[in-house]
Amino acid sequence: MSLVVVGSMAFDDIETPFGKSNKIVGGAATYIAWCASNFTGVKQISVVGGDFPEEELEALTERNVLLEGVQIKKDEKSFFWAGRYHSDMNTRDTLITELNVLGDFNPVVPESYQDCEFLMLGNLSPAVQLSVINQLKNKPKLIVLDTMNFWMNVAMDDLKKVLLKIDVLLVNDSEARELSGEFSLVKAAAKIMEMGPKYLIIKKGEHGALLFYNGQVFYAPALPLEDVFDPTGAGDTFAGGFIGHLAKTKDISFENMKTAIIVGSAMASFCVEKFGVQRLKEISKNDIDERLQEFVQLVSFDIDLVS
Amino acid sequence: MSLVVVGSMAFDDIETPFGKSNKIVGGAATYIAWCASNFTGVKQISVVGGDFPEEELEALTERNVLLEGVQIKKDEKSFFWAGRYHSDMNTRDTLITELNVLGDFNPVVPESYQDCEFLMLGNLSPAVQLSVINQLKNKPKLIVLDTMNFWMNVAMDDLKKVLLKIDVLLVNDSEARELSGEFSLVKAAAKIMEMGPKYLIIKKGEHGALLFYNGQVFYAPALPLEDVFDPTGAGDTFAGGFIGHLAKTKDISFENMKTAIIVGSAMASFCVEKFGVQRLKEISKNDIDERLQEFVQLVSFDIDLVS
Repeated sequence: MSLVVVGSMAFDDIETPFGKSNKIVGGAATYIAWCASNFTGVKQISVVGGDFPEEELEALTERNVLLEGVQIKKDEKSFFWAGRYHSDMNTRDTLITELNVLGDFNPVVPESYQDCEFLMLGNLSPAVQLSVINQLKNKPKLIVLDTMNFWMNVAMDDLKKVLLKIDVLLVNDSEARELSGEFSLVKAAAKIMEMGPKYLIIKKGEHGALLFYNGQVFYAPALPLEDVFDPTGAGDTFAGGFIGHLAKTKDISFENMKTAIIVGSAMASFCVEKFGVQRLKEISKNDIDERLQEFVQLVSFDIDLVS
Repeated sequence: MSLVVVGSMAFDDIETPFGKSNKIVGGAATYIAWCASNFTGVKQISVVGGDFPEEELEALTERNVLLEGVQIKKDEKSFFWAGRYHSDMNTRDTLITELNVLGDFNPVVPESYQDCEFLMLGNLSPAVQLSVINQLKNKPKLIVLDTMNFWMNVAMDDLKKVLLKIDVLLVNDSEARELSGEFSLVKAAAKIMEMGPKYLIIKKGEHGALLFYNGQVFYAPALPLEDVFDPTGAGDTFAGGFIGHLAKTKDISFENMKTAIIVGSAMASFCVEKFGVQRLKEISKNDIDERLQEFVQLVSFDIDLVS
């Protein structure tokens, strides 16, 4: 029984109002693995080029991230993205996208991954996501999918196919609006859940996240931060905390999903404190526990005071 | 011992994507009084022209809103505002502003209001807000002030003076940023609290509200709604629920302020369901209690599930 994570492992060049990273390691599956490995072992599926640093792979292996499903194409280059954040940190411009090894990525699920119980499909082409689902001999207990506007524009048919096969969809507010054609997030949620997913999480960045399920809704706050240093990977880290907590507890009730969203939010609040995965590499179990308590404090109130 | 409310009573002409109101009754103090009177008696300070409908004043009187401090200038016209909301409902254009009686408003605090324990200074010129504070012989237990960008631009010196005399400041996120010159709301809060207020509430519309106090922060969600029909007065209604709950319970602890913010958020969620104060006139105690329970459900999670 295991958590399988699918997604990019890549290089990012990031500019924020606080500074500029050089070419650093990024990619959805990298963030997810660094985050989820705080809670459970991870079986990774991805593709990198010969330029991807050996020591980064070793560091993940030491964290109990299995890399058997990570293809290394020695003579090719890893996926590369360069972007610049605006001063509000909520919007960014893409400066460079070089698909490289991701251009013809054909994921292969190793035999040792067939015990997959929790499947986290990080942001990637819907065709790749679907291919992984179809290679699994047994249906996982829970399939979570992240996607983005880009795939809605270039691969909507494939995206619709994969939506029929998953349990939880993760999108941000603008993506939910684009996917549904509805401005109201409540209406958007209703439409999206008719497309397949039983659970829908709408991420709103600094405004927290909403979980919709069966006519119910849960609102998780984001921790108000003095500075957001680098938002890159915050959504992937959120996903990693969410699925990591569920895989650890093996409890996919709505109640436990609420807790999992708080865990995801807490992990994302670390991610943005430094460039790339740097902060995720540093934090301890104790740091995580303290941050979770901050979330409890942040939203607790006594309704019995309404007399 | 009483709650005194200061603010405009006016006419509004509102256009939203859902329709157009004719000239309807509005104004900060109108919304605050309709809302707060669910929780406690209100002593109102305002000014209207001879055109303000008698029956609207009578309806407030029946709600235990005392109007002794409301000046009626028979030969003048009430304040009038016309605006049009954009399709996102978060932004609006002002089409017409006619100050009329508000132009030279000189508030007079009646002797019967001198038992004021809770003072709600609705959005108005800081000079008028200051005049009311200065007319009170005893310092109220709690002074809450609402203001807006407009006063920061035209009356910053007066605003700074009144900030030194209040306990709780209510602003929205863009106003907090303008007042402090900081983009990060955490940094903005720290700077604003150096200007006087011990408590700061930053309203974020559909994204909820933050309460800052003494290095602590509380995050109240907004209820995700299918449709926001008319956002006019939502902030005033929030203020009315907040101060109404505090005045009713006479408990100004940080804990009870958290509950008061939830009450304010619940009341604001009613306000936006119809044009003007219409929905506020309809709701019962039972409606309010049910809505409050929705807020409890909305944010409750079990952190003990993190094992």
